[in-house]
Amino acid sequence: MQGTGIRQSLTSIIPKIEAIVGREHVTTAEEDLLCYAYDAANRHYRPDAVAFPATADEVSNILKLANENRFFVVPRGAGTGMTGGALAVQGGLVLAMTRFNRILAIDIDNLVAEVGPGVVTGHFQEVVEGKGLFYPPDPSSASFSTLGGNVAECAGGPRAVKYGVTRDYVLGLEVVLPTGEIIGTGVRTAKGVVGYDLTRLMVGSEGTLGVITKIVLRLFPLPEAVRTLSVVFSRIQDAASTVCEIIRSGVIPRTIEYMDHWAIRCVEDYLTRLPSPDTAYSLRNSMHGNGGQETGLSADAGAMLLIEVDGSVSAVEAAMRDLTETCRKCGAYQVNVASSAQEAKELWRARQSISPALFRLGPDKINEDIVVPRNRIPDMVEWIDELRNKTGLTIVTFGHAGDGNIHFNIMLDRRDKEALEKAESAIEELFAQTLALGGTISGEHGVGITKAPYIGMEIGSQELALMKRIKAVFDPNGILNPGKIF
Amino acid sequence: MQGTGIRQSLTSIIPKIEAIVGREHVTTAEEDLLCYAYDAANRHYRPDAVAFPATADEVSNILKLANENRFFVVPRGAGTGMTGGALAVQGGLVLAMTRFNRILAIDIDNLVAEVGPGVVTGHFQEVVEGKGLFYPPDPSSASFSTLGGNVAECAGGPRAVKYGVTRDYVLGLEVVLPTGEIIGTGVRTAKGVVGYDLTRLMVGSEGTLGVITKIVLRLFPLPEAVRTLSVVFSRIQDAASTVCEIIRSGVIPRTIEYMDHWAIRCVEDYLTRLPSPDTAYSLRNSMHGNGGQETGLSADAGAMLLIEVDGSVSAVEAAMRDLTETCRKCGAYQVNVASSAQEAKELWRARQSISPALFRLGPDKINEDIVVPRNRIPDMVEWIDELRNKTGLTIVTFGHAGDGNIHFNIMLDRRDKEALEKAESAIEELFAQTLALGGTISGEHGVGITKAPYIGMEIGSQELALMKRIKAVFDPNGILNPGKIF
Repeated sequence: MQGTGIRQSLTSIIPKIEAIVGREHVTTAEEDLLCYAYDAANRHYRPDAVAFPATADEVSNILKLANENRFFVVPRGAGTGMTGGALAVQGGLVLAMTRFNRILAIDIDNLVAEVGPGVVTGHFQEVVEGKGLFYPPDPSSASFSTLGGNVAECAGGPRAVKYGVTRDYVLGLEVVLPTGEIIGTGVRTAKGVVGYDLTRLMVGSEGTLGVITKIVLRLFPLPEAVRTLSVVFSRIQDAASTVCEIIRSGVIPRTIEYMDHWAIRCVEDYLTRLPSPDTAYSLRNSMHGNGGQETGLSADAGAMLLIEVDGSVSAVEAAMRDLTETCRKCGAYQVNVASSAQEAKELWRARQSISPALFRLGPDKINEDIVVPRNRIPDMVEWIDELRNKTGLTIVTFGHAGDGNIHFNIMLDRRDKEALEKAESAIEELFAQTLALGGTISGEHGVGITKAPYIGMEIGSQELALMKRIKAVFDPNGILNPGKIF
Repeated sequence: MQGTGIRQSLTSIIPKIEAIVGREHVTTAEEDLLCYAYDAANRHYRPDAVAFPATADEVSNILKLANENRFFVVPRGAGTGMTGGALAVQGGLVLAMTRFNRILAIDIDNLVAEVGPGVVTGHFQEVVEGKGLFYPPDPSSASFSTLGGNVAECAGGPRAVKYGVTRDYVLGLEVVLPTGEIIGTGVRTAKGVVGYDLTRLMVGSEGTLGVITKIVLRLFPLPEAVRTLSVVFSRIQDAASTVCEIIRSGVIPRTIEYMDHWAIRCVEDYLTRLPSPDTAYSLRNSMHGNGGQETGLSADAGAMLLIEVDGSVSAVEAAMRDLTETCRKCGAYQVNVASSAQEAKELWRARQSISPALFRLGPDKINEDIVVPRNRIPDMVEWIDELRNKTGLTIVTFGHAGDGNIHFNIMLDRRDKEALEKAESAIEELFAQTLALGGTISGEHGVGITKAPYIGMEIGSQELALMKRIKAVFDPNGILNPGKIF
């Protein structure tokens, strides 16, 4: 999609960008560029400059300038994306949207909020909860991620089992098209079907079709009660089958999170000890039966489910009874209901520390985000077990089992070329197996650059051609976020 | 969008269409063409032929033929659309999708179904409910409408308050593009973010971007309990304010339907008497204070709410108590909980007979489908009252108050030119007022042909231009469903 003749250096353009956003809101300082050269995908691409616009008009003027002078523009939220969506892979100007950080309106009667894209997700959640309202989407990076980034990537999170993903909460948008027009999409009401659904076309388009400058979000009333249950199984297969049994029983928890044996051990270790390469070594070796200390819960735990239910007090109590029964029947050897909000918080702290904890198993992580139909999770975990045995790779899985959404992690040292090659071939096998089971290669992380090489495994050539034609309609000169998705 | 040189007569092409679908699945008989000349928008456009394809390949071959020979193709479900989406307004071939009427799969574990677009909505609901599952979208025409039509128009219905609209249930599609390619969109899993969201771009595109040949739908477990409440107010304003109070109280019923005084009277009359022009005359006159018989409930009833709650038995009981209290506090003089499923069914029969019952007030109906933010309903009903007084028009309103979705009806005799002109100008005023209150001119009926003249009131010229460019990407020769939306 990239236009030809795009200039890599912005030097002569900088004064014009400064004239648009103000001199203090543009930087080309090396130390700043380094800060904006990475995101959570852990790849590095140094942009030529970073601008911090504050209004849709400023964004519009920058995009017009980019078309006139043919330079690339890459919108960026908090840089918490896992697939490289915010990276200036071909250089150009990063458009940091952090100054769009105002909650513009919270309308309690209509359960609607209007926000800037730079508002931090977790902050927004706290503010609406303070008003008795609820914004369900909860990507694990919610403490840092911005709502604009969430919309661009269609972020998910644990609560999607019951509440769906970001897409389901976006009613309307203000978007600056790559060619500079400021458009409005969607509605501020519960329903609305006038014209094509530009809103959902923007959601999940990974910053390639426009720059979001305002978001209208749907809210719910805050549930009366929430209870959290941790359930431990000896056999990972039993945990996997339990997920379907729960849904069959007619209970829809708001989360059914799962961690495998290795995720549990890493977290336990991470939360109780100081970082130690020895521990990491010992943990890693014990995965492949080479000894290692076996202590505490983790010695016997094949897998754990973290289940959360919300609703009215009575409904939640009834659901907890049903869930406990279902889990026991499915072979759980430990079912603990968190007795306080503090205890529930501790359980979630464990869940949220999985990602950093995994680095006890290796300095680098290759992280995938596959989804299989819920009832194929048992097949998938079995297949992953075989893959682990076959390859000798350090593989840890956890994720949103209620959705069939498994985060698959290979921990390794990227300098170890042999391991890296083995890992890359394992990822391709993983994707093929996922698709064979009727799944998708990206549940909530998008495609970005890390999955772009694999998109053809899932999306056919006709569909890709159609998507590229849509991209060309929005961005005829290919100036916006090049090199992403396809 | 219409290509030039489109041939109006299909005579020479019919043998080729017959060769694709079989001679017995094409008709040009005048009596058949008349049957396919109308839909619920009550306008008549005679097509040149009707074909009944049975496979995506057949649809593909017809669309390729249409591009080669430049004739129009208009996809059609059951013809229950309210804005003329299924009408061959410029002639051509109607593609009746009724033979795609198989439920292909119901996957209980994954809460997913796969259906042909010709499956009747109500039939599908019954089948899934028989398996303990639930498909919430419930357009009032569900007994006749097809799922393909529901997807094309993004149909809503009463339950949208809690459960959203058709869009929220479509996971993936098989679509034949106007140029004949058969594509797959979306996923069969709860999450999926690979590439642009072609699925939601198709939903609500009113048959202008492709012909749907398969639909993957999300299901819910069937709620354990449902209870129905009818609430009567003297003052319509009190009914309108109650809607917001209910949501503020934290209870989200699955429906909050409303009917005004005139809707109640028509329904009462319709369900208890034989059709009689005298009654109609009397009813119509009494709207503007010219007497008329005042009997039964309807004499005092300013408005009625029909509220339905679902969930676990205990949650539903608790919600009914809260709702009764809220309604009484807001001035309801009658709150009746349906004591049996049969009684609830009777209440819904009354609700569903509003549309036919209105014809007691006039031989023709102009029917609009506006949405305002929920807390602006009181303003809107007041404004409509003033409009009724100002114009002397026979105006009746009912609708999905929980969504702010009001069905606004003018009953008249189209042969009365003066009344028709007055009505048309009232509609334009209605749309302007709706938009001024932050609403939308179409909540669930689409734009089709009846609202196309007004689309510019809601959608800006840049947005419309973008939509037209998207249409051109899909349908470069403008052969599919011309004259709709814009």
